[in-house]
Amino acid sequence: MAKNKNARLIYAPLGGAGEIGMNMYLYGYGPEGKERFILVDVGVTFGNMESSPGVDLIMADISWIQARADRLDAIFITHGHEDHVGALGLLWPRLHVPVYARRFTTALAQGKMERAGLDTTKVIETDPWPKKVKVGPFEVGFVPVSHSIPESSSLVIDTPAGRILHTGDFKVDPTPVVGEPFDPDLFGEIGREGVKVLVCDSTNVFSTHPGRSEATLEKPISELISNASGMVVATTFASNVARLKTLALAGKAAGREIVVLGRAMNHMLSTARATEVLDGFPPTVDATDAQDIPRRNLMLLATGSQGERRAASAQLSEGKYLGFELKKDDTFLFSSKTIPGNEVSVARILNRLSEKGVNIIDDSAEIYHVSGHPNRPDLARMHELINADILIPMHGEHRHLSTHAALGEEKGMKSVIAPNGTVVDLTGDTPEIVDNIETGRLYLDGTELIGAMDGVILERIRIALRGHVSVSVIIDEKGRPLGDAWVELQGLPEMTAMPNGLAGEIEDELGDVMNRADRKVLNDDDALEDLIRRTCTRTCNNAMGKKPICSIMISRLAD
Amino acid sequence: MAKNKNARLIYAPLGGAGEIGMNMYLYGYGPEGKERFILVDVGVTFGNMESSPGVDLIMADISWIQARADRLDAIFITHGHEDHVGALGLLWPRLHVPVYARRFTTALAQGKMERAGLDTTKVIETDPWPKKVKVGPFEVGFVPVSHSIPESSSLVIDTPAGRILHTGDFKVDPTPVVGEPFDPDLFGEIGREGVKVLVCDSTNVFSTHPGRSEATLEKPISELISNASGMVVATTFASNVARLKTLALAGKAAGREIVVLGRAMNHMLSTARATEVLDGFPPTVDATDAQDIPRRNLMLLATGSQGERRAASAQLSEGKYLGFELKKDDTFLFSSKTIPGNEVSVARILNRLSEKGVNIIDDSAEIYHVSGHPNRPDLARMHELINADILIPMHGEHRHLSTHAALGEEKGMKSVIAPNGTVVDLTGDTPEIVDNIETGRLYLDGTELIGAMDGVILERIRIALRGHVSVSVIIDEKGRPLGDAWVELQGLPEMTAMPNGLAGEIEDELGDVMNRADRKVLNDDDALEDLIRRTCTRTCNNAMGKKPICSIMISRLAD
Repeated sequence: MAKNKNARLIYAPLGGAGEIGMNMYLYGYGPEGKERFILVDVGVTFGNMESSPGVDLIMADISWIQARADRLDAIFITHGHEDHVGALGLLWPRLHVPVYARRFTTALAQGKMERAGLDTTKVIETDPWPKKVKVGPFEVGFVPVSHSIPESSSLVIDTPAGRILHTGDFKVDPTPVVGEPFDPDLFGEIGREGVKVLVCDSTNVFSTHPGRSEATLEKPISELISNASGMVVATTFASNVARLKTLALAGKAAGREIVVLGRAMNHMLSTARATEVLDGFPPTVDATDAQDIPRRNLMLLATGSQGERRAASAQLSEGKYLGFELKKDDTFLFSSKTIPGNEVSVARILNRLSEKGVNIIDDSAEIYHVSGHPNRPDLARMHELINADILIPMHGEHRHLSTHAALGEEKGMKSVIAPNGTVVDLTGDTPEIVDNIETGRLYLDGTELIGAMDGVILERIRIALRGHVSVSVIIDEKGRPLGDAWVELQGLPEMTAMPNGLAGEIEDELGDVMNRADRKVLNDDDALEDLIRRTCTRTCNNAMGKKPICSIMISRLAD
Repeated sequence: MAKNKNARLIYAPLGGAGEIGMNMYLYGYGPEGKERFILVDVGVTFGNMESSPGVDLIMADISWIQARADRLDAIFITHGHEDHVGALGLLWPRLHVPVYARRFTTALAQGKMERAGLDTTKVIETDPWPKKVKVGPFEVGFVPVSHSIPESSSLVIDTPAGRILHTGDFKVDPTPVVGEPFDPDLFGEIGREGVKVLVCDSTNVFSTHPGRSEATLEKPISELISNASGMVVATTFASNVARLKTLALAGKAAGREIVVLGRAMNHMLSTARATEVLDGFPPTVDATDAQDIPRRNLMLLATGSQGERRAASAQLSEGKYLGFELKKDDTFLFSSKTIPGNEVSVARILNRLSEKGVNIIDDSAEIYHVSGHPNRPDLARMHELINADILIPMHGEHRHLSTHAALGEEKGMKSVIAPNGTVVDLTGDTPEIVDNIETGRLYLDGTELIGAMDGVILERIRIALRGHVSVSVIIDEKGRPLGDAWVELQGLPEMTAMPNGLAGEIEDELGDVMNRADRKVLNDDDALEDLIRRTCTRTCNNAMGKKPICSIMISRLAD
């Protein structure tokens, strides 16, 4: 590769740095303003009632790279988790570039394209390392690595300014049950060839013990299931195909038929089989065929380990679901950890199960689940194997990034904390923050992508907190109020203790105020609207100590 | 006490059983339908965006006992935590009975009464055990017990049908730093006198190690602070006066002046001093006087350990607050645990602190905080000391109650899982569930108490999820639409890609539909409203895949 004297190598996270979720990382090489770019991952995160009510999916605002899409050469997807590929179908139409991924991930990514009505051939199945994809000034190779989904990959990104190793999500697992083990020789070899920059997963930097292998779960899970008396239900992340295999084999060994409940889990298993990343998974039974099987011979694998309301676990906790009903002495295993923010949803399920007398096994004892991310000693191992000059922590909240950066500096690497929007120049020996590009979030609201800062969601939050008053007023041909103001309340108490209720009280007040109002005010839409708004707010505040949002519609009859 | 042959002894939790928070437990004795009652605790829980947006406080719906208030003799408050006394000022006007509490709790309870404009003398300061208060058929004594607030008490409730020990919140702590230690001899003695029913805290039933004493924190906290370089900030629960003392003494020993930030914390400290439950607390410095003190000689005690947005910790994490500004190498100690549901709010603060380069010490290593509740071995100790016939687990979600009940049954006690609303007859040898009374929740919304099931909050949640459309339509004297429908959107995107935006699109559709509408429909308010609603919903759904809530105002000009 020819090195251009004026060229620079830059890194700019658009999502995933300063948060866990919606990963999207930009790399650029070329003279300033003329760089060619590649994008690594196009993930989503999920909306929540607290900050984004009604929003289904959240992804990085790609305006900056969209405006430079002619200089974007490709998208690379490290693995098939939603926080790495979930936005592909929504954002690809704004970028129109080839997408590269390994086989299993390609199948999932093509599914996203297909559901969005896009050309699935734009996602190109790519062989792993040592194969490299050449796009613009970059040569990119997919290095197999263990994680909690099959075929996860670190990326070697070779550039004229040196090599980058972008770890993607990974764990150091010699026995991952499904897929390739972590190969220290391979990573060591890549490191010995010379790596300038290690861009590295930070999720578990606060966990001080070495990560445990997926294979360590076989024994405790098998023992648990063989000792269970009634029906057994186990939930985990749908994409954790290795865990599903461990669970299913343990169930089979205990003389149970396996039923897979939930679309996401069935989809992952069939994709894993079709792309040949999964073998040895025992045969399963359909929900309908399972109805005649005695409970002690049944094991259900169910979606919804995070308490999702419509998933199989929540449905099973509420009552009968697809013919299955949990009873006293059944066993429900959470082979999963609760992601921060989901505690209350998960507790809701636990309590419903408790009401049914179900034997609940959660992961509080850390026996039945292992993480898919590298703990601190595993990070140290990766640092040593790659032996890079520069460490850029990614995939973490700010506190994860800063703690990981400090760890790297202890080991003699130069490090930089680069949250979303930071542009880091990696050309020289020392990483330099040279710019900040506008980033933000896009919300998928229904079928519409809206900007997080557009105010739409903020208005919904305000109404949720304060309620809403709609007012309709008619001004007659002579410029006087015609009849009474009409007030409708949304999300406000009727206040039946008041003679006409709260709506009547506001209507009365508006009547008084408008009758006393100056003709100049009545003739001026803005002044009248302001008067009505102040009257509504004051009346509600006096009545119940709240100032609702008001929508005011003033109709004027033509002269 | 005379035992009445027809009388029964009943227990009915109104709040706190099947949830953690808003404790309120009813005891009754007498012939069925003529029981005399006492109420133990009148607590609150806090609203959240997920299920109760805009709601400040939540408490038990007391309709059932309110309808029988003439048979209610008294309220007893075990201790001063908000989840035990927070609803007093709001609910007392519906009950009008004397309130008994110990000295420190009385001061806090009287504060609640005063702020509600009620007669503070209705709260009666009561000496601890062996003193007993006689009300109706009950004799009630306050037995000092250790917890995370001064002067917590278990209640001995003697009735003609036998003795109840209601533990309240407690921990087994021989060295609680402030207040009375747990006294096994006293509880043993009470047990030996014969206890029929133990009603017992279940919060920590899942913690398998013995609880740690408050005093164990002195050493690690002192070491941490003496090794800190810049300013030190520590946050904990405002009411944990013992912790505040440990923190302040450690700060003083390290040559730091102590500043207390946050109204709740200052209030707790001054109340504790005034009621003589606290001594040896070092002198503190006002925020204004602290500005000239070097950072390395300052220690701030700050409210907001749960991430509350307006509390001192959040303010300090955001920027300058009362003249203080956190900098690189300052230390911020969370001497607290994060209550489930608050993880995201706390993480927000952690990340803001991380951005400032502050050294964050949280409780992930379980060194700088101890719980105020009994772990499983501590529960076993209480079970043994009291040696009751019957165990009723309280203060817990369903899974806590059921696990605690199983523990009691292992120890040979009869136990019953009694969530809110369950009426348990305790007259005989075996507890019997004899009734279910209507319970629920009251929401404090602004200054108004509304029923959780009234639909007000549900409507706010619906609008938050789906947006809102206000429509104003005028029908003229001839029964025809006058001018165009007027549409205002709340929390919906403008959709500028549409020629007239989403509001214009709905207005156009409404125009079409109403012009085509049958005169019968136009003349019928219900039919017209239905037509307008369906048109709005359909148009929005087609445009963006969402069905908003619609408020429709039809004005008819007089003939």
